[in-house]
Amino acid sequence: MSAIEITKEFVHELISHIESTNQEELLPVLEKLYPADIAELFDELNLKQAVYLASLLEPQKKVDVLTELEDNVKLKFLAGYTNEQIAHDFFAYIDSDDAADILNAMDSRQSKEILRTITDKEHSRNIASLLKFPENTAGSLMAKELIRVKENWTIKQCTDEIRIQAEEVSQVYTAYVVDEFEELLGWISLKKILLTPENQKVEDIYDNNIISESTYSSGEEVAATMQKYDLVAVPIVDAFNRLVGRVTFDDVLDYVKDEAEKDYQMLSGITGGKDTSDTVLSNTRARLPWLIVGLAGGIASSLVIGGFESELARNVQLALFMPLIMAMAGNVGVQSSSIMVQGLANNSITNSDVWGKLGKELIIAIINGLVCSGLLMGYGFISGNHLNIMMTVSLALLSVILMAAIIGTVVPLALDRLKIDPALATGPFITTSNDLLGLFLYFIIGNIFLA
Amino acid sequence: MSAIEITKEFVHELISHIESTNQEELLPVLEKLYPADIAELFDELNLKQAVYLASLLEPQKKVDVLTELEDNVKLKFLAGYTNEQIAHDFFAYIDSDDAADILNAMDSRQSKEILRTITDKEHSRNIASLLKFPENTAGSLMAKELIRVKENWTIKQCTDEIRIQAEEVSQVYTAYVVDEFEELLGWISLKKILLTPENQKVEDIYDNNIISESTYSSGEEVAATMQKYDLVAVPIVDAFNRLVGRVTFDDVLDYVKDEAEKDYQMLSGITGGKDTSDTVLSNTRARLPWLIVGLAGGIASSLVIGGFESELARNVQLALFMPLIMAMAGNVGVQSSSIMVQGLANNSITNSDVWGKLGKELIIAIINGLVCSGLLMGYGFISGNHLNIMMTVSLALLSVILMAAIIGTVVPLALDRLKIDPALATGPFITTSNDLLGLFLYFIIGNIFLA
Repeated sequence: MSAIEITKEFVHELISHIESTNQEELLPVLEKLYPADIAELFDELNLKQAVYLASLLEPQKKVDVLTELEDNVKLKFLAGYTNEQIAHDFFAYIDSDDAADILNAMDSRQSKEILRTITDKEHSRNIASLLKFPENTAGSLMAKELIRVKENWTIKQCTDEIRIQAEEVSQVYTAYVVDEFEELLGWISLKKILLTPENQKVEDIYDNNIISESTYSSGEEVAATMQKYDLVAVPIVDAFNRLVGRVTFDDVLDYVKDEAEKDYQMLSGITGGKDTSDTVLSNTRARLPWLIVGLAGGIASSLVIGGFESELARNVQLALFMPLIMAMAGNVGVQSSSIMVQGLANNSITNSDVWGKLGKELIIAIINGLVCSGLLMGYGFISGNHLNIMMTVSLALLSVILMAAIIGTVVPLALDRLKIDPALATGPFITTSNDLLGLFLYFIIGNIFLA
Repeated sequence: MSAIEITKEFVHELISHIESTNQEELLPVLEKLYPADIAELFDELNLKQAVYLASLLEPQKKVDVLTELEDNVKLKFLAGYTNEQIAHDFFAYIDSDDAADILNAMDSRQSKEILRTITDKEHSRNIASLLKFPENTAGSLMAKELIRVKENWTIKQCTDEIRIQAEEVSQVYTAYVVDEFEELLGWISLKKILLTPENQKVEDIYDNNIISESTYSSGEEVAATMQKYDLVAVPIVDAFNRLVGRVTFDDVLDYVKDEAEKDYQMLSGITGGKDTSDTVLSNTRARLPWLIVGLAGGIASSLVIGGFESELARNVQLALFMPLIMAMAGNVGVQSSSIMVQGLANNSITNSDVWGKLGKELIIAIINGLVCSGLLMGYGFISGNHLNIMMTVSLALLSVILMAAIIGTVVPLALDRLKIDPALATGPFITTSNDLLGLFLYFIIGNIFLA
């Protein structure tokens, strides 16, 4: 709960104060609002209004608002400033990782000019050094800002260093201990620094049990490490174990959420992290490819059925249960594949027990298959359908459930082995291929037992 | 990356050292391992081995290992101890929220006896006070351990308080400022305490812009607040704004991940957060209900088709495209419903723009529908199918896509309005109902145009 609730009336009043450049009303309100709240307000303002409101903020808060904006809004907002203003008003106060994210989204001419214009050359070099890391690596997620202390320092020297760095490093939880070659040796918590006498040496009290990740670790690996060890920040080292940055919990929390959303949408047949506020065009582009996959699958199904047309003419009742077979093949396939995709994402499936997982999925499928075909037989008796039709359909159902479970289990594992994102195997892809194979199996079994 | 990699050989060697009670080999290894690593090792040990290994750990680390165990493993491990041992060896050192989680999973007789046996009565009362909060509220997620300072204290007094509490509060990032009635006034970061002269007063330097949540906030609300404001911990207050606990980032990270997994599984037709390591029986129970929904839908489909049997007999070709219609209805429905469910979960859909969202989904559906029916017509020309059949199927496809988009959009919104989890509307439920309605629409249109 924040101090001020952002209602429609509040926004309305705020805009009228902006239009009348009424600083006396605006300043106390801005004082009370958090950067994340002001960033939200920007969605309701036009560029001129947003730039005016930002001009009333103190430099650091103005930057905090910028970093809290949605990615696509950041560049729109910065379009209200010259490159020189961006370099001096924003980039002088921004964390290196946030700066790198923005520069990565700009065209390279603008990004180079801004880097050149930043007055603090070390800060500029820090930002530039982050630009070279591929997306989704620890190097691209990390910030250069952190507290670095030497093992031969006293606690007093540590406190002085924190005082010097305090402006630049906003969140301080831990000081990292390095040797003269910048190699990472260990860490001290801020609590320990606070409670240890000033004249004691770092080397006597620091903890050399330290967990780090390398710049080329994936975002998933960094997130898993922080989650497993409950770390508020994880230090990032280069190939020579030299400390080069750190990733903090807030970056990882955003990362975990974004990844979960992407997987969720992949399962529902939408590519690339859309949400309800994206444009109609980008939403259509994200969905249409999967619908065309489904369409192709449907046309293929029509060919399969067409191939069994004479069979179908002999036993028209077979047509009645086509939807049932397809639906069950799809459902079982999605269940198995999504369990596998989650297991692979969590690293809870190791190479050694692949056969165990497959066996387990098969046992579950046999139980589910027997129950469902039993229920279908029961329905057959009650409804008075032809016994041999119902027996054939039930047998086909059992076979299709088994087949769908095998495909749902094996395809994600195979994709993972081939270094392809197994999440691709969920959603429309698995449903469509299971539909097809399920129908095929259905007619084959029908052909054998009702010939 | 941890210091020791846990390989099969490592586990093998460790077990042989445990069996020969070889402390000299085990102690230095345990020293190097983090609690989360030791907890992982427990999966490979039997109860006797685990209890022996735990006996070699210092008290706090032993408790940290316990809290890192998977929920279902915790009780199994504690079965190796008497209630008295649990109270003295574990609960004396455990954070109140972790203790409450364990007690909630025990039967109430055992839980009461353990609470009675804990020597530190205040700790025992703290734990008991957490037991009363319903699952998934801030009250049930919070821990009572935190640093609490008074506004009229000096910084020196704060440091002394942190020193006293240091053993009990493992993660210290912030001190919370309260008045004489324990009402929450604001906060000071540890960094500020470290950098401020000892004789300064808390009231002169603390930040009174503080974000808190109440005990009855939902887990989702707490997670959203921490994510929005990048908070490492959020203070929890009671109805009188008195500080009663705090939720830290690690709890929220776990929570966000669990919730995302649940939504993902709901979409794939699995209830209640299963993973590949759960038993066959519980996995079957989580999936079977959704398969039976699918089965019932399939049987209902057979009745719908049966109702149009004479129609089907006249135009056998209609049967060929049933799978296509069903698959497309399912895919479009899942796309629309999952976008809505995510939007509702993110609070990015507000009441005022419900009509806007519906309109947008309809426009997307019209575009997707026109493209897909156009492609289908194209296929019809090339394949040389009867023109009137293909025109009917294409028209039906367009109608079914529109219908599925409307249902997929409206059902989650309606469930949300009725305070039912909209995630229920995704997965097998939406697919099955769209299958049915889609088929129905298909035959109606077929009946009109091919009569």
